[in-house]
Amino acid sequence: VDKAGLSVEDVQHLLSHGIPMSEGMGVIVDGLPEGGAVLRVPYSDSLVRPGGTISGPVMMALADAAMYAAILGRLGAVIMAVTANLNIHFLHRPGKSDLIANAKILKLGKRLAVCEVALYSVGQSEMVAQVSGSYSLPPEAGSGG
Amino acid sequence: VDKAGLSVEDVQHLLSHGIPMSEGMGVIVDGLPEGGAVLRVPYSDSLVRPGGTISGPVMMALADAAMYAAILGRLGAVIMAVTANLNIHFLHRPGKSDLIANAKILKLGKRLAVCEVALYSVGQSEMVAQVSGSYSLPPEAGSGG
Amino acid sequence: VDKAGLSVEDVQHLLSHGIPMSEGMGVIVDGLPEGGAVLRVPYSDSLVRPGGTISGPVMMALADAAMYAAILGRLGAVIMAVTANLNIHFLHRPGKSDLIANAKILKLGKRLAVCEVALYSVGQSEMVAQVSGSYSLPPEAGSGG
Amino acid sequence: VDKAGLSVEDVQHLLSHGIPMSEGMGVIVDGLPEGGAVLRVPYSDSLVRPGGTISGPVMMALADAAMYAAILGRLGAVIMAVTANLNIHFLHRPGKSDLIANAKILKLGKRLAVCEVALYSVGQSEMVAQVSGSYSLPPEAGSGG
Repeated sequence: VDKAGLSVEDVQHLLSHGIPMSEGMGVIVDGLPEGGAVLRVPYSDSLVRPGGTISGPVMMALADAAMYAAILGRLGAVIMAVTANLNIHFLHRPGKSDLIANAKILKLGKRLAVCEVALYSVGQSEMVAQVSGSYSLPPEAGSGG
Repeated sequence: VDKAGLSVEDVQHLLSHGIPMSEGMGVIVDGLPEGGAVLRVPYSDSLVRPGGTISGPVMMALADAAMYAAILGRLGAVIMAVTANLNIHFLHRPGKSDLIANAKILKLGKRLAVCEVALYSVGQSEMVAQVSGSYSLPPEAGSGG
Repeated sequence: VDKAGLSVEDVQHLLSHGIPMSEGMGVIVDGLPEGGAVLRVPYSDSLVRPGGTISGPVMMALADAAMYAAILGRLGAVIMAVTANLNIHFLHRPGKSDLIANAKILKLGKRLAVCEVALYSVGQSEMVAQVSGSYSLPPEAGSGG
Repeated sequence: VDKAGLSVEDVQHLLSHGIPMSEGMGVIVDGLPEGGAVLRVPYSDSLVRPGGTISGPVMMALADAAMYAAILGRLGAVIMAVTANLNIHFLHRPGKSDLIANAKILKLGKRLAVCEVALYSVGQSEMVAQVSGSYSLPPEAGSGG
C-alpha cells in the first residue's frame, strides 16, 4: 500500500464525529483486520422494533459504517468517499445482544471500492444479514485500476 | 382489495411508535396514494454528514419506512411485515431541505411485496436516490399469487 | 451534451456484434428516447424455462443490454463501458410474447452511470421485472460530476 | 434434512434440460458441497465480449444456475423454485479460462432461500464477481421459518 491506512482510534474518531447516526447508535470499531473492518453496535432497547429485534435501518447504518471503516483503514482519511450503492438481505432475526459487522474489501479500484459485510448477533451462529455495496472514491484516493 | 388499508393517521401512528429510528428522524406521512406512499423527513442539522448533506443511513431508513407505509396503506396493520431485501443507488447529493420518499408497490404477492422508492430533495429536480426492495408478508396478509 | 450520441442503427450494430448473447437472443433496438433506450427480444421457444416463461438470464441479459444502449445513445461509442452492478427483482411471469426493456439513465457522472430498467411482456400491463444498475465509464467519457 | 436433496447427476440433468441458456453455455456441475454448489462454464470464444472477457450476462446466468443448483441439491427437485431477486457486483475481469461459481445457501426459509455466489476465473486469485439473491420456494418445499 502506498497510502497509509488509519488506526482503530482514528477510524473510531472519524465515525463518531462524521456520521451522525453512527454516534447515536454507539458504534464501536472492534478492529481493522487486513482489508476489512469489524464494528459493533451495543444492544440497547432504543434500537429495537416491534417484536423486540434490532431494526433494519440500524443494520443498514452499521453495514454502511463498516464499509466506510474498512476503506478508511486501508486508504487513510478519505472522508469524502461516499456510498454509491448498498444491497442488504435480511436473513435471521438478531437476538437481544450486540450486533457485529464484519466488512471485507472485495475490490479496490481507482474510482470504486466494493465491499461485502456479514452481520452477526452475538451468541447466534447464523448470519443476521448479508450486505454488499460500493463506495465512490475521491480522485487520487484509490489504487489499482 | 379484500383487506382494509390504513389511513394516513394510522400509518403515521404505527411508524412513530413502531420504528425507533423513524421517530428520531421526525418522519411524516405526507400521503398514501393508490398503491404507494409519500413520506418526508424535515431537514435538520442533526441528520447531516461531513459536506453538509443528509446521511445515507437516513435515506435508507426513510426508504424502508416508505415501503412499509405503502404496504400498511394497502393491506392494513400487518405490523409484522419485515424487510427481506433493500437495494439503494445514491445518485445526487440532497440539498439542505426536506427529503421526500415516493414509494410504489410493484408487486403484491401472497408472501412477498416488491416496491420501488424514488427519493427527492425539496427544491431539486434530480432524483437523490433510487431504492428497490421486498417485504416478507405474514401468512394471510398478502393477496394475489 | 458535448458528446454526440449514437443512432438506433449504430447502437443495434454495436450490440449485435459486441455482445455475444445479445445476438443469440435476437435483441432489437426499438428506439432511443432522450436519456433512455427501448429494446426488444422477440419471443422464441428456445428462450423459455420450465413452465413456459422466458428465463431469468434472458431478462438480465436484455436489461444489461438496454442500460448499455441508453449509455451509447447518450455518450457515443464508449464500447469499453462495463457493468459495475446490476440488481433485478422478478415480479410477474412474462407471457408467450416479445419482451420489452425500457431503460432510463438516472445519473450520468464522470465515472459512473446509473440506470433503471422496466421489463414488460407485450400484451401484459404489469411490469415483469424491475432492474437497476450502474456502468463504469472509461476516462473522458462521462459528463457532470 | 427431512427432504432428500439431489445428486450431482440429477442436478446436472435438470439444469441442462430445464434452463435453455445453461445448455448453450455448457454449464457443468462440479460438486454439491453441504448447503452449496460449485458450477463451471468452460471457456469458449463464443462467450466473450469486446476486450476478450466473458460477458456479464454469462456470469449472471451462471450465478443464477448455481443458486438453483444449491437449492435443488438441498431440497430435492423443486423445479418450480424461481428467482425473486439477484444482485451482482462485477469486480475483476475474468481471464481466458473456465469460470467457476461457488454458491452457498445463507438462509433456507419456508418461502424464500437466500444465497451468495462468488465467481472465480480459473488461474486468478481475485474474485471476478460477487452475487447475492433470493429464490421463491413453492409451497411445501422450504424448511425452517
